[in-house]
Amino acid sequence: MQSATALDDMAQAAGALLERLRTRSPRVHCITNSVAQNFTANALLAVGCVPSMTLSPEEIASFVANADALLVNLGTFDAERRAAAEIAVDTAGREGVPWVLDPVFVDRSERRADFARTLIARSPTAVRLNHAEFSALAGEEPSAAVAAATAGSNELVIALSGAADLVTDGKRSVSIANGHPLMARVTAMGCAGSALVAACLAVEDDALRAAACALVMLGVAGEVAAEKAQGPGSFAVAILDAVYRLDAATLRKRAKVT
Amino acid sequence: MQSATALDDMAQAAGALLERLRTRSPRVHCITNSVAQNFTANALLAVGCVPSMTLSPEEIASFVANADALLVNLGTFDAERRAAAEIAVDTAGREGVPWVLDPVFVDRSERRADFARTLIARSPTAVRLNHAEFSALAGEEPSAAVAAATAGSNELVIALSGAADLVTDGKRSVSIANGHPLMARVTAMGCAGSALVAACLAVEDDALRAAACALVMLGVAGEVAAEKAQGPGSFAVAILDAVYRLDAATLRKRAKVT
Amino acid sequence: MQSATALDDMAQAAGALLERLRTRSPRVHCITNSVAQNFTANALLAVGCVPSMTLSPEEIASFVANADALLVNLGTFDAERRAAAEIAVDTAGREGVPWVLDPVFVDRSERRADFARTLIARSPTAVRLNHAEFSALAGEEPSAAVAAATAGSNELVIALSGAADLVTDGKRSVSIANGHPLMARVTAMGCAGSALVAACLAVEDDALRAAACALVMLGVAGEVAAEKAQGPGSFAVAILDAVYRLDAATLRKRAKVT
Repeated sequence: MQSATALDDMAQAAGALLERLRTRSPRVHCITNSVAQNFTANALLAVGCVPSMTLSPEEIASFVANADALLVNLGTFDAERRAAAEIAVDTAGREGVPWVLDPVFVDRSERRADFARTLIARSPTAVRLNHAEFSALAGEEPSAAVAAATAGSNELVIALSGAADLVTDGKRSVSIANGHPLMARVTAMGCAGSALVAACLAVEDDALRAAACALVMLGVAGEVAAEKAQGPGSFAVAILDAVYRLDAATLRKRAKVT
Repeated sequence: MQSATALDDMAQAAGALLERLRTRSPRVHCITNSVAQNFTANALLAVGCVPSMTLSPEEIASFVANADALLVNLGTFDAERRAAAEIAVDTAGREGVPWVLDPVFVDRSERRADFARTLIARSPTAVRLNHAEFSALAGEEPSAAVAAATAGSNELVIALSGAADLVTDGKRSVSIANGHPLMARVTAMGCAGSALVAACLAVEDDALRAAACALVMLGVAGEVAAEKAQGPGSFAVAILDAVYRLDAATLRKRAKVT
Repeated sequence: MQSATALDDMAQAAGALLERLRTRSPRVHCITNSVAQNFTANALLAVGCVPSMTLSPEEIASFVANADALLVNLGTFDAERRAAAEIAVDTAGREGVPWVLDPVFVDRSERRADFARTLIARSPTAVRLNHAEFSALAGEEPSAAVAAATAGSNELVIALSGAADLVTDGKRSVSIANGHPLMARVTAMGCAGSALVAACLAVEDDALRAAACALVMLGVAGEVAAEKAQGPGSFAVAILDAVYRLDAATLRKRAKVT
């Protein structure tokens, strides 16, 4: 949907965003499940960010107010995290902190889907999810047209993961064909991807560009990691190394954005 | 206690179960402690399963009802996990979902041992524990005869870890001498073993065979991993790779089942 | 501030403590955040300790009473961990169990700083923190003189991390210049350091010596790990291996204690 120039721009933009992340070290506050916390924090540190992860109702508002971006991941849907999410989203809205919703497993639980819908009504900057999660929330299959229409009517960016990732804000759409099958064999890889979207939103006002660049970074890092991995254990280690060592030239050479 | 033919069968059965896990990708729901969640999820993914880990009282019943197996690990014994365990065990009983109890550290806390006893009364398919935990629950040392008698009278499979693992259902008993000392230097290795028992129960109705095969898989993977590990850090990585790459030939060559 | 002989002593003491940890396998109970639990447990296992991590109010007293040391880390400041910390600190005081406070992020939340102050008033054996955290608690910048005065008036050991770590009990002070920048790129590295301080307190009554030796061990392991790491992913793995393989000769050769 973009011209070749626009696409070249996206690979270049990813390099520029990477540089900004390393220079500015934005703080990304994460409400995420306890399965994913460690890997998510390490992914953010690898890309140059400072993660924070408190869930305490008494202090989350001050953590979010001073953060550069917020991630709300519904992976373990306990009362504490729901309460934390309410406060965090209010604070982000009031303070203008960009935020990402990752509605993990809403296809497995109607209550979780309901909660996700109330959060979407409160204007996340971006929502990252897979096909099953999209269908559960939207009530229909996520064709490119449906995804774009949903993004447009909700005034947010949708990052839809799949064989190729689709990122759309309703007006513009980008498809990213990077990544590796081993990414599906490491828990929290999707959560880490959502955290990188939040990280890029901290240093880039164009939310479509931020989300697309984040997914390019992780996908390219996954390809680099797969070249030396012996399985999912060494892959999880190697992708953190690859994120840390990522450079503009590698992004330009490997990015598959259309 | 088995003939040589029966023992050959066990190594072969492990290969067949591995194939079934990879083909069917069963979903294993885990109530486990936050120390172990990440490694447990990655071990399940490495062997071909889909892990889920929610603890929320509102949705755990639907997660368990649709799961292929359940793990209840008492590693961090908080109120939320106790409540989740009650609902999950009820659901598993009603829906016929096989489940494994891992009564971690019941030897350190009488209240935890009491709770474990109430769960054992609700008919787990298998209980995996070490010698100290067995003694705390049964009130006597776990000789092979005592373990078999306990398994028989409770109508469940006991998988007793130790220098050699003993698996018994009261009528049949198997001893597994695979594994490596580094397995004791990585946190959550036992929890991951219990998760693999649950995984095998999802694809094999003979619970003794399922439990024994799971322990053979992990023990053999541990031996493979130890050959390239430099210490417990690289060992934890390598064992996930080894589980992922495990094949029937390696299992047949290395299994030490008597 | 010490003579050359005293400094040689510290590198030698670290070797002797390492030996004692491996021989005695002390149990270290950790109240720590869910981001850090897994890596902290693995660091303790790598050095030869037995970690335990329950937070349940019903059983934490018995876990702490029988532990050889206690770590209280404020990294995720939820109600459950606050309640657990109160009981644990009471128990440690009554039973004479040495304990370490790691007041993570008190510079980001006034309530957390208040809670940390109430814990400091209950006589931790050591407090490990960074410059921003020290300033938030003490109300002034941590010069060597201020740190020493604070340690002396509170009758505890302060381990202040930074470009070089400063360890002081008010009368004696030690500076440790080991470590590597990648240590700041792995989440929970500081938490693991505090856990090692607790571990050393379990086998050494001189708290200054225990704290200094723990930081020497981790710093030297970090240097060894950095020599083979490709980035923060492989570094986190390699530092666990390095802790596990650490020996007196390496400590003597690499320790930079003044």
